[in-house]
Amino acid sequence: MIFLANDYNHGAHVAILDALRETNGESYPGYGKDIWCERAAAAIKKHLNCPEAEVHFFEGGTQTNVTVIAAALRPYESVLSPDSGHINTHETGAVEHAGHKIEALPATDGKITAKQIMAAATAFNEATAPEHITEPKMVYISQPTEYGTLYSLAELEEIRQVCDAYNLFLFIDGARLAYALTSPACDMTLADLARLTDVFYIGGTKCGALLGEAAVIINPLLKPHFRNCIKQNNGLMAKGWLLGLQFYTLFKDDLYFTINAPANTYAEKIKQAFQKKGIMPYIDSPTNQQFFVLTEAQISKLATNFAFEISNKIDANHKLVRFCTTWSTTADEVEELSRAVAAL
Amino acid sequence: MIFLANDYNHGAHVAILDALRETNGESYPGYGKDIWCERAAAAIKKHLNCPEAEVHFFEGGTQTNVTVIAAALRPYESVLSPDSGHINTHETGAVEHAGHKIEALPATDGKITAKQIMAAATAFNEATAPEHITEPKMVYISQPTEYGTLYSLAELEEIRQVCDAYNLFLFIDGARLAYALTSPACDMTLADLARLTDVFYIGGTKCGALLGEAAVIINPLLKPHFRNCIKQNNGLMAKGWLLGLQFYTLFKDDLYFTINAPANTYAEKIKQAFQKKGIMPYIDSPTNQQFFVLTEAQISKLATNFAFEISNKIDANHKLVRFCTTWSTTADEVEELSRAVAAL
Amino acid sequence: MIFLANDYNHGAHVAILDALRETNGESYPGYGKDIWCERAAAAIKKHLNCPEAEVHFFEGGTQTNVTVIAAALRPYESVLSPDSGHINTHETGAVEHAGHKIEALPATDGKITAKQIMAAATAFNEATAPEHITEPKMVYISQPTEYGTLYSLAELEEIRQVCDAYNLFLFIDGARLAYALTSPACDMTLADLARLTDVFYIGGTKCGALLGEAAVIINPLLKPHFRNCIKQNNGLMAKGWLLGLQFYTLFKDDLYFTINAPANTYAEKIKQAFQKKGIMPYIDSPTNQQFFVLTEAQISKLATNFAFEISNKIDANHKLVRFCTTWSTTADEVEELSRAVAAL
Amino acid sequence: MIFLANDYNHGAHVAILDALRETNGESYPGYGKDIWCERAAAAIKKHLNCPEAEVHFFEGGTQTNVTVIAAALRPYESVLSPDSGHINTHETGAVEHAGHKIEALPATDGKITAKQIMAAATAFNEATAPEHITEPKMVYISQPTEYGTLYSLAELEEIRQVCDAYNLFLFIDGARLAYALTSPACDMTLADLARLTDVFYIGGTKCGALLGEAAVIINPLLKPHFRNCIKQNNGLMAKGWLLGLQFYTLFKDDLYFTINAPANTYAEKIKQAFQKKGIMPYIDSPTNQQFFVLTEAQISKLATNFAFEISNKIDANHKLVRFCTTWSTTADEVEELSRAVAAL
Repeated sequence: MIFLANDYNHGAHVAILDALRETNGESYPGYGKDIWCERAAAAIKKHLNCPEAEVHFFEGGTQTNVTVIAAALRPYESVLSPDSGHINTHETGAVEHAGHKIEALPATDGKITAKQIMAAATAFNEATAPEHITEPKMVYISQPTEYGTLYSLAELEEIRQVCDAYNLFLFIDGARLAYALTSPACDMTLADLARLTDVFYIGGTKCGALLGEAAVIINPLLKPHFRNCIKQNNGLMAKGWLLGLQFYTLFKDDLYFTINAPANTYAEKIKQAFQKKGIMPYIDSPTNQQFFVLTEAQISKLATNFAFEISNKIDANHKLVRFCTTWSTTADEVEELSRAVAAL
Repeated sequence: MIFLANDYNHGAHVAILDALRETNGESYPGYGKDIWCERAAAAIKKHLNCPEAEVHFFEGGTQTNVTVIAAALRPYESVLSPDSGHINTHETGAVEHAGHKIEALPATDGKITAKQIMAAATAFNEATAPEHITEPKMVYISQPTEYGTLYSLAELEEIRQVCDAYNLFLFIDGARLAYALTSPACDMTLADLARLTDVFYIGGTKCGALLGEAAVIINPLLKPHFRNCIKQNNGLMAKGWLLGLQFYTLFKDDLYFTINAPANTYAEKIKQAFQKKGIMPYIDSPTNQQFFVLTEAQISKLATNFAFEISNKIDANHKLVRFCTTWSTTADEVEELSRAVAAL
Repeated sequence: MIFLANDYNHGAHVAILDALRETNGESYPGYGKDIWCERAAAAIKKHLNCPEAEVHFFEGGTQTNVTVIAAALRPYESVLSPDSGHINTHETGAVEHAGHKIEALPATDGKITAKQIMAAATAFNEATAPEHITEPKMVYISQPTEYGTLYSLAELEEIRQVCDAYNLFLFIDGARLAYALTSPACDMTLADLARLTDVFYIGGTKCGALLGEAAVIINPLLKPHFRNCIKQNNGLMAKGWLLGLQFYTLFKDDLYFTINAPANTYAEKIKQAFQKKGIMPYIDSPTNQQFFVLTEAQISKLATNFAFEISNKIDANHKLVRFCTTWSTTADEVEELSRAVAAL
Repeated sequence: MIFLANDYNHGAHVAILDALRETNGESYPGYGKDIWCERAAAAIKKHLNCPEAEVHFFEGGTQTNVTVIAAALRPYESVLSPDSGHINTHETGAVEHAGHKIEALPATDGKITAKQIMAAATAFNEATAPEHITEPKMVYISQPTEYGTLYSLAELEEIRQVCDAYNLFLFIDGARLAYALTSPACDMTLADLARLTDVFYIGGTKCGALLGEAAVIINPLLKPHFRNCIKQNNGLMAKGWLLGLQFYTLFKDDLYFTINAPANTYAEKIKQAFQKKGIMPYIDSPTNQQFFVLTEAQISKLATNFAFEISNKIDANHKLVRFCTTWSTTADEVEELSRAVAAL
């Protein structure tokens, strides 16, 4: 069985296991006040062109999203999100549990536009009775999106302009950021994200780490007491150095980019295999997630040897499926899938 | 200036002021444990055919909505609502502040259908990873809706069937219930609401009282510790008898129906005045709220003598407006508006 | 039966009922944007010597407490309160429901000291791992306290100094403020409260109004979006002018002071009656609440003609009781109680 | 520098690192639906004598505490805790952030008694106005406590009886459970905990794992939708098998007990070293945490070679300190400390 159902099905890159073993005899202070978190932050900040950025490490994505949002917003403020956004669809109402309304904007291929954001912000500003509604104060988007698509640098810059004009925080969920930054279709760098966002996070769990996400805070308004917020939102890891060590390992020699780039190449090969067979991608994703609409028969056939994600029904006989490559995916696995697709 | 902007612009029906004055020399126990709350509950229950119903009094609608929802739902459960529902659009995220996600369904003329509810419930039941999403557990609708429209008895019965099939609570917001029940277009009674819902509320603030709403709990599962929930959600009024006394006054001799019925007649006259002028209603409302799309010039002209609600822009030159009658609206006021409309 | 169990057992001062009747034919804008709220704010502000103060009206005390606290605090911030404080003992966890920890300090006769506050603030500042604890950011006290006692001006000034030194908001719950300000033992005015607090509220429900409390915001940091917070915490009354009208009536000619002052005199007489009988007050309260420890036999005897509050057991044969006067208490009622006490 | 400041300063037992390496080439389903979580649950359940228990894995203790409490309680219900309990003192108000009041009971040596619990439950049951207070519904205690002390089996049985009588859930925080169960002073087993509690957790982070805690749910009322609650409280780990694998490793051959038992022996030796020097333990702890009151001079002297926790001031010249052994502590380290203490 070849596993292409998601990008969190494997342990960690071997360099990370090695680092864990090498440091296993040492003692470290708790809660992220250690040398590895410090080094990891420094290694990440080399890419940012933003010396005053703060880096905080989390165990997982939902935790990061909720903490950033709960730390940034006052109770009457809301967060704008694509309706397909992870916080709106896959986090069991965790943002609402923390007290905040998500204002979901209809997404196209997982993305929202500067224009949509402006319209939402304007609606509040022009409301005759603004005390009856929540005030949009943050924009949450993902890069790449839940559908594997990318915001272009121009799109992000437009969004930034709207955020500046309407005094909104821009928060980018980078759970799969490695697959964005190493995609040939991507025209931005970490430094661009540092320049354009107020806060973003660099995904580890899906990009070579055992677990962990690195939140990068750019806007000074978001810094005070952020560690209290992490703790309050159940995310301050006792052995914080385990997260720092992993990110240091991924960033000291750019492993983060080199080990994840092939996943995009493999994803492209999967896309081509389906296209050759006449099955066009459901969404044109330039990253590690590929979506297709398959018949039940095609699904059954492929399911004998491959694990992939079967999501919602399209019609009586068709379903949307996702094939997902990751840092651990091999050329052989993709070859085998291509052959299987050709034989459909 | 004739005030038709909303249905909460006047004090109270004179019978209520009289009742307040008559009892002003008496002392009563606090927090709703008094004779008037008891009598009011009894007077309301005469209409319900449901002797085991519980009646609780609140100061306002948002308070009632939030308390009912917070009392009914477990943290991971969500409430389905029309996207135009009051809890989703006019309560400053109070439901989310209390920790719950609202799953907004696209409404047509302020209403949602049994089919939409079934689809939302099914989506949860069929989810491959239900732990990542909130479970729909309550349906919130308004009768009449925020657009003045009505659910028919058949529609409500269909919704009830879906609620039974999927184990959902049905909660009806009756902030303007008097205008529903006295509309010629309405084919249901309070007893029908008691039969078909798990909980609903009877609006007082907009229907002749100084302030107050009466929540009627039908489902025994919603009864335990409900008073604790009222207190926790900031709604347990110290002088609770003031609410009981008002509802007793409104229900002992059916004042609730007789004083509010004319508002529907007046609203119909307003509709006809606009129709005669060739201005069709934006939504076909059989109750006290009437919506029209007017030009800026028409708005300016009417605004000299009439207060009405101007809401969102329709296009560069048109806006949606609302005229709202209420128990205190007079025949003369409506006559004068009709003349002004004719003269547009 | 003479009712001395609490200070919210009667309707309203007749001037308020008159005002309601006189304005009952008028139409007003909703949600506190009306002429009466404006006039009431102006009448209150005449006493404050603080032209930039903001006044907001609420329906009840818990609502006011929760809204002020939720509006002022960030999620990781806590509120210091006497352990006997209303928010800690009588509000069904409403502050915690809104997400905040109350740090209860052991009270003496319902009061806490500047020293205790400083110790709590210092504990946070000196914590080696402050991210693991909530940061005290607000002091909540009541004037008079839940035991009828008063803070002196000197005590409040000391508390203010600590609040300044540790950057804490000072919030005074004045649910019974009229009984404080008209007590011969009180050495402060409304202007002192405006000078010394960041926010406080003037109780109406227990001091002559039908219902309502007036929150006075002094600190500009607490002003932005406060109305959104009121709405979100279920307290923005549709017919807000009903609250404004009541406070205008109470403050335009100092009715607030004149109608409530006798309650203190009557309370003093009750105290003397018990003292004459050899029953010393449990706590030396100079305001409208008087506490005594009575035997079961004494309680039974008095309970035939008087309603009073019986609270916790002191020992097998004794209980703590409270007699409470209010604006509606009469000289005859107090006379009769005095005779009954003498006859114990 | 010998590190005895806490029990989370080291990586993991080597068997765990080995297990991670051996499985690193495999693919697993996400979110705890994998073979290792299944095997770990089975291995743990062998000790429980409770086949219907459910085991869920978490990343850390605060997360576990908050999730269990938020899943178990209705909004108006509170949790009783020793005032020294972790949820009350070291979790940045996370329980309150999730909406619940902690009713802190004064602890003696970190423990509370059945009598105290009964008194708190009785206070609610006998309250004349129970709607104004939160209802105690859960008892939270730790074994061992934050001060290293242990509840005896008899004490726990008494607490269970009170919980049964008052319908309270009993929840035991076992962040350091290994050190309790392997202490010579301990007279209970995992099966006793399963018999006496509604839910408890088995600590991994401080007991040989890299990270992780295993919550064991006994009471069927706490089982429904528990995974939704984990997700909503930010704790559902994508690579859940990493937690299962660790607990399987710790429990398949009783490593959990054998690797942690020596820490108690070492702690006893530290205690004896201080006692020999005439420094009596501050609290008589039979587990891995040892508390002493030292002079500033003694602290300075020991601090040159040893890391230990310095907590609150006792007086001008004395501070409370904690020495903490753990699974990775060695005989040599303890020897060296003993010599240093002797030389004080």
